Amino acid sequence: MKFTVKRAAFIKKLNDVQRAISSKTTIPILTGLKLDVESDQIILTGSDADISIETVLDAKNEDNGLSVSDPGKIVLPAHFFSDIVKRLPEDTMTIEITEGFQTEITSGAAAFTINGLDANNYPHLPELDGNDQIQLSGNVFKQLISQTVLAVSTQESRPILTGVHFSIDGDQFLAVATDSHRLSQRKIKLPAGNTGKYDVIIPGKSLVELSRMIGEENPDVIMRISENQVLFTLGDTAFYSRLLEGNYPDTSRLIPKEATTTLEFNAPALLAAIERASLLSHESRNNVVKLAITTADSQIVISGNSPDVGNVEEQLDAKAVEGEDLEISFNPDYMKDALRSFGQTEIRVSFTSALRPFTLVPTEDQENFIQLITPVRTF
Amino acid sequence: MKFTVKRAAFIKKLNDVQRAISSKTTIPILTGLKLDVESDQIILTGSDADISIETVLDAKNEDNGLSVSDPGKIVLPAHFFSDIVKRLPEDTMTIEITEGFQTEITSGAAAFTINGLDANNYPHLPELDGNDQIQLSGNVFKQLISQTVLAVSTQESRPILTGVHFSIDGDQFLAVATDSHRLSQRKIKLPAGNTGKYDVIIPGKSLVELSRMIGEENPDVIMRISENQVLFTLGDTAFYSRLLEGNYPDTSRLIPKEATTTLEFNAPALLAAIERASLLSHESRNNVVKLAITTADSQIVISGNSPDVGNVEEQLDAKAVEGEDLEISFNPDYMKDALRSFGQTEIRVSFTSALRPFTLVPTEDQENFIQLITPVRTF
Repeated sequence: MKFTVKRAAFIKKLNDVQRAISSKTTIPILTGLKLDVESDQIILTGSDADISIETVLDAKNEDNGLSVSDPGKIVLPAHFFSDIVKRLPEDTMTIEITEGFQTEITSGAAAFTINGLDANNYPHLPELDGNDQIQLSGNVFKQLISQTVLAVSTQESRPILTGVHFSIDGDQFLAVATDSHRLSQRKIKLPAGNTGKYDVIIPGKSLVELSRMIGEENPDVIMRISENQVLFTLGDTAFYSRLLEGNYPDTSRLIPKEATTTLEFNAPALLAAIERASLLSHESRNNVVKLAITTADSQIVISGNSPDVGNVEEQLDAKAVEGEDLEISFNPDYMKDALRSFGQTEIRVSFTSALRPFTLVPTEDQENFIQLITPVRTF
Repeated sequence: MKFTVKRAAFIKKLNDVQRAISSKTTIPILTGLKLDVESDQIILTGSDADISIETVLDAKNEDNGLSVSDPGKIVLPAHFFSDIVKRLPEDTMTIEITEGFQTEITSGAAAFTINGLDANNYPHLPELDGNDQIQLSGNVFKQLISQTVLAVSTQESRPILTGVHFSIDGDQFLAVATDSHRLSQRKIKLPAGNTGKYDVIIPGKSLVELSRMIGEENPDVIMRISENQVLFTLGDTAFYSRLLEGNYPDTSRLIPKEATTTLEFNAPALLAAIERASLLSHESRNNVVKLAITTADSQIVISGNSPDVGNVEEQLDAKAVEGEDLEISFNPDYMKDALRSFGQTEIRVSFTSALRPFTLVPTEDQENFIQLITPVRTF
């Protein structure tokens, strides 16, 4: 195995694949990066068993400056190899297997020799049978991920809740996540031509890593689903994730259909007030803030309180106030996550009672995006 | 106590004073920020017992928007108070003691009430007697600090070595730091008019904090020294540090007067090569790299080696090579620190033997700045 390549192009591919490589893995060879050098391309692979990423560096693209003089394959210690490649002195570098699995990396006057591993011992990537695929706009999908993944559970006690539930039926795509204290639900319409029907749960961690790879260079994402794996294709890069096994709870009945009190706010303004109130709630044992609504005079007061430190009270400026008076307490951190997911929009908050979950939706589009938060009982 | 002030101006002063405030202090009142509100100014004070910072926010400066309706003083929980002030909704805020030490902070519709402490229990700042003072250019002093403080010891076993030794005699200012493995020495000439004679050891940590406060707004630093304290004045801000007690070791005899091998390098180029070599040395138990110099053919090879991972070898490009052949090993991290302190200059490295300390000086000014490193015996 011997090839010469432009470092900048190689580093870009290396960074993509490294997202999947963890130094904490229990399978030693997975701390490595696999290089498959063929006569006209290099395939780079990284994996932590849950996520696998494979990408191609092509000799046809002149920016890559790839010239292969001897095909072959090797697994190199990923973290360390990447440090070396990033610090080499020249624009190009040459990588060659010299003896056994010893690999020489040269650039200018610098020559590194590092111990590699036999690529034949590297696990095979899952194979996905069937040709059904779902095509998505990268930007829309990235937004869907960020709007739902915030509500996945971080606790392993109910593993199924650490994923986002995708229900796809033709052009209807519904994504739901809940940690049982809050829930995020987003609906999008797929481009015409998508006809499959799928019901899968994808680990939140996989989606977070995937969304970091969706950039301007990859306007479209192609998703293919098998029994226990999902494959996302972004240009030259394949991103595999395992699926979570089990049945996702039925979340449709959790969302209240009616409301007794509704408020409308500018999301960033409400976020700023919640952030202030949470300064105090964070200092107290039970992290809650209280919202007191008097609809007759449109008075809405948020308050936070810590016996040791002090208290805060702020009158909120709502765009609309309707319905019954209410006092309700909730975890401000859930509220902050939810509000951030709306960005710079107007939102409607709908309550039914002090102990029932309340919802936040964009005022302009109340059907397709909903955040739900369960209040905290304080009496 | 009651005053109104522009938040931006207050936050700037708060940030300065907070450098001295640690949440780890064993004296509870020192986790607080002291506010002395007088009719035409506020004095803000923070301290961790080692360092104390005092600054003034003046009503005369219109940018401060300060209007005091009732003088007074209070100590407020610094970290928490600062979080509140930074998140308030409006450009101005009002702070008022309402009852006992309870303090109300209002801005727009937000009102915080926090528990303060009696300012009479706050320790007094040291008083410096005498009028002798040393005036310095802030930029020159900042550079002197960064060039020496890197060599102070981080170990408390010899506390005196955690400081930088300042010897001032008229217009001669000599600063030395050593952790017994390496030494940094910088000489500067003080502006005419400085006539005092001082010999003090200032904690490295104090100098690091001080240098962060020397900015474009404070072109000059005034230093006043008493028996156990030093006071640096930067514009409106006073920075006090305790001095280290004891005798600093005589370092002048450590610097070799002669050399048997000398090399000249571009500092950033040598730094890049050392960084590459250290990638491997960091993976091995004894973190050393080796320099092999053959003067006849001007061959200089740096190498690093880790039995587990591999090895690196690089031919260095020296501007000049003179004297005897030599093989010498050293800790690359000391070398990196030293090289960074030279910036973008040419340097001369002078060796006497494989076991004796070697020195680095700027080729253009070999008298006033020197870095010394003790090699590591590897045989």
